[in-house]
Amino acid sequence: MQTPRTTPSRSAKRAHYDEVTLHAILDEALFCTISYALDGQPFSLPTAFARQGNQLLIHGSVGSHFIREVEKGIPVCISVTLLDGLVLAKSAFSHSVNYRSVIIFAKARKVEAYDQKVDALTLITNQLIPNRWEDLRPETESEIRKTTVLAFSLEEASAKIRTGGPNDEPEDKELPIWSGVIPIKTVRLAAEPDASSSQLPLPAYLA
Amino acid sequence: MQTPRTTPSRSAKRAHYDEVTLHAILDEALFCTISYALDGQPFSLPTAFARQGNQLLIHGSVGSHFIREVEKGIPVCISVTLLDGLVLAKSAFSHSVNYRSVIIFAKARKVEAYDQKVDALTLITNQLIPNRWEDLRPETESEIRKTTVLAFSLEEASAKIRTGGPNDEPEDKELPIWSGVIPIKTVRLAAEPDASSSQLPLPAYLA
Repeated sequence: MQTPRTTPSRSAKRAHYDEVTLHAILDEALFCTISYALDGQPFSLPTAFARQGNQLLIHGSVGSHFIREVEKGIPVCISVTLLDGLVLAKSAFSHSVNYRSVIIFAKARKVEAYDQKVDALTLITNQLIPNRWEDLRPETESEIRKTTVLAFSLEEASAKIRTGGPNDEPEDKELPIWSGVIPIKTVRLAAEPDASSSQLPLPAYLA
Repeated sequence: MQTPRTTPSRSAKRAHYDEVTLHAILDEALFCTISYALDGQPFSLPTAFARQGNQLLIHGSVGSHFIREVEKGIPVCISVTLLDGLVLAKSAFSHSVNYRSVIIFAKARKVEAYDQKVDALTLITNQLIPNRWEDLRPETESEIRKTTVLAFSLEEASAKIRTGGPNDEPEDKELPIWSGVIPIKTVRLAAEPDASSSQLPLPAYLA
């Protein structure tokens, strides 16, 4: 949703507020960076997450200092960034990056119901490794109890996207300096079994 | 430097404070996420940066709302995360990720001297694309004037690193569930020239 806080002061044409765009970026990302402030001092933590409908879910140990502050419902800012390319122009000034990012302003809602916590942990696990949860030994009640799950509304979220090549100044365009894009990709390499799995077949969802 | 703020409440054995470790992570990263707070509300922005000795440099438009707040010298938290792998255990609870991250607590110092600004912009450009600056048309005085450069001391910075395979509970180790690591890598794909460069040779530093 566009609010004063989600309206960028620069490059406003790169901003997007529709759910399809927001959800696609969140669903591709492997972690978010969540920040809160105490007495004017910001604290940030990179952490795994999942999207469930129009909310974002994170989890952490009930003993985590960070989780215990955020679960109070103080304002947080959550940042997700996918870097897609380096944009090389003929001047340093026109260099840029291609990216898709999301910024979310929200307050935590603590997920208390046991089944909802299990659902959230399923989604967080499967966000990183699709279909993984179904393969695992079931969580124990003690494990669920030791884990805090927090939900954040995506109501006040915005995306910023830059795509395409460099935007050089007209007077620079003829300079014999190579310009273009170096695409950046995050890739998963071949799975490496640990000692206990050297004799086990690699599951199809990891191939 | 280890301070109460840079001492993690969890997994303290993953924390590092030596410059060699901190600098290596920062030098590999392509962007940082910088956060500040106004009236208890955190704001975060992903942005390019470079390291110069024991300080981190960012740049932005003199008109950027974010830059204008941060340049006042209010407390910021800067987060850098390199995701190295997904760690698949036999229980969801023991799943983890391999990563190298840095958290910095600092306040901006505005870089005012013209030559120091040029040096900073050289480093920020070359952090993304080594040797690029030397190939470009020189920046104009007007471009330098339109750019704010901010420096942050790395004095109060800490790294967190996780490496290796899953740490399953002893009673889980014999379960016939595949466990191990899926390495994650950020790769640069082949450079794509724009229309103005289709006849230009690709510079050696981009090959």
